[in-house]
Amino acid sequence: MSTTRGLEGVVATTSSVSSIIDDVLTYQGYDIDDLTDNASFEEVIYLLWNGRLPKKDELEELTKNLASDMEVPKEVFDYMKSYPIDKVHPMAALRTAVSQLALYDEEADEMTEEANRRKAIRLQARIPAIVTGFARIRNGKEPVLPKKELSFAANFLYMLNGEEPDEISETAFNKALVLHADHELNASTFTARVCVATLSDVYSGITSAIGALKGPLHGGANERVMSTLMDIGEVDNVEPYIRKALDNKEKIMGFGHRVYKNGDPRAKHLRDMSKKLTSITGESKWYDMSVKVEEMVVGEKGLLPNVDFYSASVYHSLGIDHDLFTPIFATSRVSGWLAHILEQYSDNRLIRPRAEYVGPDKQAYVPLNER
Amino acid sequence: MSTTRGLEGVVATTSSVSSIIDDVLTYQGYDIDDLTDNASFEEVIYLLWNGRLPKKDELEELTKNLASDMEVPKEVFDYMKSYPIDKVHPMAALRTAVSQLALYDEEADEMTEEANRRKAIRLQARIPAIVTGFARIRNGKEPVLPKKELSFAANFLYMLNGEEPDEISETAFNKALVLHADHELNASTFTARVCVATLSDVYSGITSAIGALKGPLHGGANERVMSTLMDIGEVDNVEPYIRKALDNKEKIMGFGHRVYKNGDPRAKHLRDMSKKLTSITGESKWYDMSVKVEEMVVGEKGLLPNVDFYSASVYHSLGIDHDLFTPIFATSRVSGWLAHILEQYSDNRLIRPRAEYVGPDKQAYVPLNER
Repeated sequence: MSTTRGLEGVVATTSSVSSIIDDVLTYQGYDIDDLTDNASFEEVIYLLWNGRLPKKDELEELTKNLASDMEVPKEVFDYMKSYPIDKVHPMAALRTAVSQLALYDEEADEMTEEANRRKAIRLQARIPAIVTGFARIRNGKEPVLPKKELSFAANFLYMLNGEEPDEISETAFNKALVLHADHELNASTFTARVCVATLSDVYSGITSAIGALKGPLHGGANERVMSTLMDIGEVDNVEPYIRKALDNKEKIMGFGHRVYKNGDPRAKHLRDMSKKLTSITGESKWYDMSVKVEEMVVGEKGLLPNVDFYSASVYHSLGIDHDLFTPIFATSRVSGWLAHILEQYSDNRLIRPRAEYVGPDKQAYVPLNER
Repeated sequence: MSTTRGLEGVVATTSSVSSIIDDVLTYQGYDIDDLTDNASFEEVIYLLWNGRLPKKDELEELTKNLASDMEVPKEVFDYMKSYPIDKVHPMAALRTAVSQLALYDEEADEMTEEANRRKAIRLQARIPAIVTGFARIRNGKEPVLPKKELSFAANFLYMLNGEEPDEISETAFNKALVLHADHELNASTFTARVCVATLSDVYSGITSAIGALKGPLHGGANERVMSTLMDIGEVDNVEPYIRKALDNKEKIMGFGHRVYKNGDPRAKHLRDMSKKLTSITGESKWYDMSVKVEEMVVGEKGLLPNVDFYSASVYHSLGIDHDLFTPIFATSRVSGWLAHILEQYSDNRLIRPRAEYVGPDKQAYVPLNER
């Protein structure tokens, strides 16, 4: 037996949800460049779950169902108010709240495709409400109920801030949601598929995926990019800061990706947004610093920016707390997780690989007093 | 690229925790036959986490730490009392409660090896308290606090029933815990490893694993075995019942296993226990029915009983509710999950395989009104 560390390059399943071929990312055959320029996140959700873009009435129905399912059971927020929320990692809060949602869903263990699709809509709708509710509760505010007439992107920002976003913010946030929606067998999606391949329920799958996304090698990266930018502070500090980090062989977050050889196709969209939004907020230093960091890391290490690098300054410019960057990633990626879970159920086989044993040789039990 | 469905036979990692070679299961080099006959579950926990059996003082320290960490934060049981507990799957309750534990653990995101080992003890200790607390709360009773002088196995039965078990029950339950403690890269363990390979925290890993174990193709199997036995009802009904099931090509739970060719080495121990315990309870029909089912399934399908098959009548004979069989599996297997998580952290690489794309061909976005 031979082991491929981290299953690099190993094909674990077939999938029609998304593809990464020759550094091009597509969702169900649509290039993400095309979708980012043109599609609403609601269209992308429909696309990922159904393999085609919705017709007008289908989109209206999904939009209506998402808006009406955004309300979270009261008990979930009541409980959130009771725990030491200012010490709690937002992803631990989200993981817990999503697991709790199952306790109030009488269909939680109903495994028909129809029931699983209804649960998919409920999860897609309630995760933004949980993320924004958490953000408000820890600041001593009440969660804001969604407005049925707003888009998914606008509702997120409305529930977060208590006021409707301007069009530029809504458009930028929609693009960010579209760009993060799916990414083939990334670690959180793979976690969800391994989990539900035991025929466990959708809530278990999404709870697992949130747990995986929480890790700094996955969803936690964009928050760390922002920490680096805050540490650097000013454009003039980039050169000595990055020089020192490179000399000390420190990892600079937001660069490189196992599956892309010539760069992450999502990065350019976030770079454009970062430029635009930071100039509007009057804090273009975040963009300027990012560009300079990119130049140095590309020049010295040959590593290109990934999706996380410019999303940091984008979310910062939208006025979002830095520790909410990963929960926002989850708000988008849950659409992909659900698509993969539905796909796994539709043609399931238990995912159960082997380990190569490298432990102690065979030995016999020795009684305690003889050890 | 070629896909191996369910990663069957694919080596996903090296591991020294346990091995399955030529139908022999060992934990860190010790044959499980030897451990089941001789070891306490506390010794097995130590073995899995440290690669060797404990000396006397090491075992005493672990036993003391496990007992003192068994108390669950009050808020977790308070919340449990508030939700619609009689409609909730016990594994959904366990998944939620374990995720909640992180909210009250100030070390939850502390990633040193020492902190992770302290959290391992807390999780190993609190899971039996949560499982038994859940069982009592849904029957309108208060959780029972553990007794520091009891063994892990005895404490579980004491916290469940409110009275100390007799020696035969304690011994049988200890053997069941030893037998279920680890099983190489089974689906829940693999879920935990994929999750924490993003460098996510221990609570995320265990929450994910519980979600995976919940599935009927994994931990849910022994509960289903008991349902089958209840359906059959009497020894004389076995023959027509199983004949009909085989004719209808229905799956009979508790038989066959992907990694064993000549039978699951754990089954014989549970078979012996089933015989002994059912004769003590005066309900030997469960054992007799099981033997007859085994004879038919072996004879007709060539499938041998796995760990789940006789554990059903063992747990039933110990007076345990059938829907607690899977949470009990978790109470034992968490020792293995934790060993694998610690091993993953010690030499980590992100687990990120690929998917083979089989979806729609490339296509261009079409505006909504032209679809």
